[in-house]
Amino acid sequence: MEVRERLAAVRRKMKENGLTAYYVNDSDFHLSEYVGDYFKVREFLSGFTGSNGIILIMSDMAGLWTDGRYFVQAERELEGSGISLFKMGEEGVPTVLEFLEEKLGAGDALGYDGRTVSAAFGKKLKKLSKKKGFKINPGLDLSEGIFDRPPLPSGRAFVLGKELSGETVSEKLEKLRSKLNKEGADALFLSSLDDIMWLFNIRGADIAFNPVALSHAFISVDRAVLFIQEGAVNGELREAMAEAGVDIAPYLETELRLIFYIYETEYLVDIKRKGGKKPKKEHKKIEGKKSGISLGKEKGGRSGKKGRIRILADKEKVSYSLYRTLKKHAKVHFRRNITEEMKAVKNEVEIGHIKKAYFEDSLALTRFIHYFLTDREKPLPANTDQGEGLQGGRKAEGQKPRKKWTEWDISEKLEEYRKGIDGYLGPSFTTISAYGPNAAMMHYEPSKDNPVEIGDEGMLLIDSGGQYMGGTTDVTRTLILGGISAEERHAFTRAACGMLSLLNAKFLKGCTGRNLDILARAGLWNEGMDYKCGTGHGIGYMLNVHEGPQGIRWKQTENEAALEAGMLISDEPGVYRAGKYGIRTENVLLVRDDMKTEDGQFLSFENLTIVPIDHRGMDLEEMSAAEVKQYREYQGAVYEGLSPYLNEDEKEWLKEYAGLKEQSVDR
Amino acid sequence: MEVRERLAAVRRKMKENGLTAYYVNDSDFHLSEYVGDYFKVREFLSGFTGSNGIILIMSDMAGLWTDGRYFVQAERELEGSGISLFKMGEEGVPTVLEFLEEKLGAGDALGYDGRTVSAAFGKKLKKLSKKKGFKINPGLDLSEGIFDRPPLPSGRAFVLGKELSGETVSEKLEKLRSKLNKEGADALFLSSLDDIMWLFNIRGADIAFNPVALSHAFISVDRAVLFIQEGAVNGELREAMAEAGVDIAPYLETELRLIFYIYETEYLVDIKRKGGKKPKKEHKKIEGKKSGISLGKEKGGRSGKKGRIRILADKEKVSYSLYRTLKKHAKVHFRRNITEEMKAVKNEVEIGHIKKAYFEDSLALTRFIHYFLTDREKPLPANTDQGEGLQGGRKAEGQKPRKKWTEWDISEKLEEYRKGIDGYLGPSFTTISAYGPNAAMMHYEPSKDNPVEIGDEGMLLIDSGGQYMGGTTDVTRTLILGGISAEERHAFTRAACGMLSLLNAKFLKGCTGRNLDILARAGLWNEGMDYKCGTGHGIGYMLNVHEGPQGIRWKQTENEAALEAGMLISDEPGVYRAGKYGIRTENVLLVRDDMKTEDGQFLSFENLTIVPIDHRGMDLEEMSAAEVKQYREYQGAVYEGLSPYLNEDEKEWLKEYAGLKEQSVDR
Repeated sequence: MEVRERLAAVRRKMKENGLTAYYVNDSDFHLSEYVGDYFKVREFLSGFTGSNGIILIMSDMAGLWTDGRYFVQAERELEGSGISLFKMGEEGVPTVLEFLEEKLGAGDALGYDGRTVSAAFGKKLKKLSKKKGFKINPGLDLSEGIFDRPPLPSGRAFVLGKELSGETVSEKLEKLRSKLNKEGADALFLSSLDDIMWLFNIRGADIAFNPVALSHAFISVDRAVLFIQEGAVNGELREAMAEAGVDIAPYLETELRLIFYIYETEYLVDIKRKGGKKPKKEHKKIEGKKSGISLGKEKGGRSGKKGRIRILADKEKVSYSLYRTLKKHAKVHFRRNITEEMKAVKNEVEIGHIKKAYFEDSLALTRFIHYFLTDREKPLPANTDQGEGLQGGRKAEGQKPRKKWTEWDISEKLEEYRKGIDGYLGPSFTTISAYGPNAAMMHYEPSKDNPVEIGDEGMLLIDSGGQYMGGTTDVTRTLILGGISAEERHAFTRAACGMLSLLNAKFLKGCTGRNLDILARAGLWNEGMDYKCGTGHGIGYMLNVHEGPQGIRWKQTENEAALEAGMLISDEPGVYRAGKYGIRTENVLLVRDDMKTEDGQFLSFENLTIVPIDHRGMDLEEMSAAEVKQYREYQGAVYEGLSPYLNEDEKEWLKEYAGLKEQSVDR
Repeated sequence: MEVRERLAAVRRKMKENGLTAYYVNDSDFHLSEYVGDYFKVREFLSGFTGSNGIILIMSDMAGLWTDGRYFVQAERELEGSGISLFKMGEEGVPTVLEFLEEKLGAGDALGYDGRTVSAAFGKKLKKLSKKKGFKINPGLDLSEGIFDRPPLPSGRAFVLGKELSGETVSEKLEKLRSKLNKEGADALFLSSLDDIMWLFNIRGADIAFNPVALSHAFISVDRAVLFIQEGAVNGELREAMAEAGVDIAPYLETELRLIFYIYETEYLVDIKRKGGKKPKKEHKKIEGKKSGISLGKEKGGRSGKKGRIRILADKEKVSYSLYRTLKKHAKVHFRRNITEEMKAVKNEVEIGHIKKAYFEDSLALTRFIHYFLTDREKPLPANTDQGEGLQGGRKAEGQKPRKKWTEWDISEKLEEYRKGIDGYLGPSFTTISAYGPNAAMMHYEPSKDNPVEIGDEGMLLIDSGGQYMGGTTDVTRTLILGGISAEERHAFTRAACGMLSLLNAKFLKGCTGRNLDILARAGLWNEGMDYKCGTGHGIGYMLNVHEGPQGIRWKQTENEAALEAGMLISDEPGVYRAGKYGIRTENVLLVRDDMKTEDGQFLSFENLTIVPIDHRGMDLEEMSAAEVKQYREYQGAVYEGLSPYLNEDEKEWLKEYAGLKEQSVDR
């Protein structure tokens, strides 16, 4: 079936359902950053394979909304589909909501699958429908019968022992319950997979790059329930959960059972309120059925809110469908998941493993860089055109055969080095190996089928990371391949100095990333340069490479989180020039307590990434004395840290690559 | 009448009114920073003369809440009064709201004068009363008959011509109305005096330091009304208002007439909505009465909100009393006053005058510093103990008579210098002239009656400013009087370098002060030092020395405003060590457009304060090369700017004082 036929099929179904418009995105039921193929409805219907996209289908139009990373790709992939491209963020291009506001009115109806939309977005759609007078149906998956979904991912999950987690599930639950109590909440409902994995000390295999299992969780004072697929559970996991007093329930019965647990909690809370006496009020009859559990009246909820339990949910992390269920049966209080805040602060055991993982990951990357750059200096094959146009290149004399490297080769070879590390599980995201202008696209992915060859000029940006039994890594280095322009060297220098300036920050407890962002950017801003993204994000522990609540960005956001000792944060300023080049230098930092004085508790960063910065990109002439000092110190520390594990060749190379030979001359 | 008697009288009245607690603050009806004596009820009832304080009176207790600036003073002034001191911000000390929450419950009643409390605070009290079940009476001024209020201040206001304001009232009203329209609002109600002065291009004389007149204002599409006291209005003002289509109404009839204008607006809006036809709906009968205006049914409002006009009000700037009136008759939408945002961005004419005012003010202060420091070097009187303990002082040889300077003398003499400037109107706030440990109190005021003598060691902090026909200034310098410790010099250096670092910032449009604050603080934070206040505040034009919406602070606040070209902002990092010393270096900066590149519009600061930093406080050894460069450039620019207006003695002195002689040796 072609895209046009797929859309036609959807339109037929829209007609049957009386819809004017149908909205489709590519989220799973957990609003995850990465999703399994099961959930790729938008990709199937539109033919657009980028990771961020929304389609809106109406009788006379179909539109795809995506962001700047994908404009070129989307134009190519949408060709002939009849789908118009809406370039998010471009001047004059309406957002989906603005478009709907313009197009829909009384008599119209919008449908979508509420399981794949956040409670926050669902509420926005509802508000809009009220304002404009159109109807809304949030319970429609029109892809049924059109999109032949692959099976739900259901990999085997595994249990983390205390030697890896640092804290038992019981200990975590106790802390969580005390926080719930403090906030006057009776329960917490979780859909965010990494929060659930963290809380129950398990890891799964249902989403690429993220070791998570499809699941939901309900936690009250008396209950902790893990909704998970049978296929993910083995004996060890079952035992571990039983030990921690966690019930296991079927993933696909989440909604139904959730209602039961809500009423059960209400019943128990009521008893407690009355000092242990059985409440007078007649509670809903709870009787066993085939599914194990059922309620006399499942749908509809009750009138009045008195007596309902107060349940916390994160409006960005719970689907609109499940939010509606919660709301029908309990008082929902929107709040950032408490578990997100707890998870972000790594404990001492985790930190121990993380440091080790970052060290080994850094060593592997550095050794790979040495291998790659050295390999490139080997003689070229005789009949190649690569010999042309070398300016400042590092090619050896003569024209003998040498390997031609592609962007794809880089990610393959780099992974070989990571595979050599004990406990390596796989990449933590798709390696960005981007040569020349490709690096200007922040989230570029190298193509395996049409690999781009790496030339002898300009720069190569490599942003990669690994999942280990003991940490998740993320690191970017930009390698100088040959001649670079003065502009490129200037940009490279400013980005690297910005990274080091933030790394060396000292700040009062209470600061958020917004207070610090300018430390990374000032050197760029002073020259009229900027990068159009945040400076840093939180990082999981054997979990998602992007996690909250902390971040480093200069723009205001709704819910800023203060930096706390034990948090991980990336530090990745860059310069991106469309069609020309892209530069990024990214380290990962650990927030730690610094001095405590009469003026308060200060925090600073411990650097975790021990990979040299390419000295050939640095213009020491333009750097301030303080910048030169920070740079020398960093490169020196990298050499000190790695050299005991390098062979003589590598050591010699590292000294030169990090500019440490030059330094001894300076002195 | 003693304080105890006054409290007893209040308690009798509380009993009559069935109150458990009575709350009194020291605000005027406009929530102004400074207030006239008419409004100083709290001061009268408690005997505490500090500018920030709240008293709560109950049958068996009375408490005064004040902040750290006033702890010592309050303890002294409250002695024997039976009033307990609640130290705001100290560990374990409840806020007034927390205290009320603990003490009051069902059956209790709290009274206060809603005219002196913001709508925001009044709503908080109401919420608390609902939560705890106590009653609230926000319409009680129990000071009647106890506190013999002086007459309402009513100085003569004057009109600013376009040569001073840069924009006519009509032009401002047109812009304002277009903004109201854009936000879907029918009207704006203003109580903030500086906003009203700005909008109507007038200045008054009702509050010390702030050239404002007691007033309110109502602006709709069809009406602009200035509620002002008869005594403030002269023929010129009346004419100017008439020309701009502004009605003048009596200040004391604000509430009553406001209701009329609301209904009038509702009527006119309704006609417009119906395309000019007279609405069918019967509007309230509006008939003339003795007061000029009356409504069939003044109180009580109507049921239902349909048809009501949407009126904007600032919840921090409108009193709870007036908010209740508005709410009864219109739909109130809380929003920061649009006029505050408009006023903050100075126009070209204003900027021209401001630059001149800052230059002349800087020149006067510099010449005063020269006079004071030179005078101190004159021989001492024979029998003084001031000759002792000089370390590194600049005392001349011999022991001949010389003037003994006090903190009070400083403010007196400094004002003499300012009086020499054309268009000087008076100080813009009470001069802080603080010697030694006194400077550790950020808002210290020198005593006239018990003046503190200035010794030959340590430092003198002078924070002062003037009101001019063409600007409001604010500047702080800390003078080195003699020996200072290494710690003091270190702190002095860090504060001055922080000021200069912020002054030299370049940043993307959209940044708020929170993005920049760390530039002023980093040098202190790196050494474990901090100052417990913001780094900078906005400044009025011939208006309040503190104005919003912009500010520079690191802590999150509810309503941050981006910096915009044309705004003024102070830049005043410091170090304060209780019982030891206080240091602050404050310049005022003008935000201006800087370069525009492919990455966006950048902003930077133009420095307005041209006063040297005391070179003897600076430790160039500890400064980075970049800091030394910024410092030299600043001091050089001060010399370049001022020297043409200085005599030979002053020029020679300035060179040395600013460290410029040393610099030429360096080169």
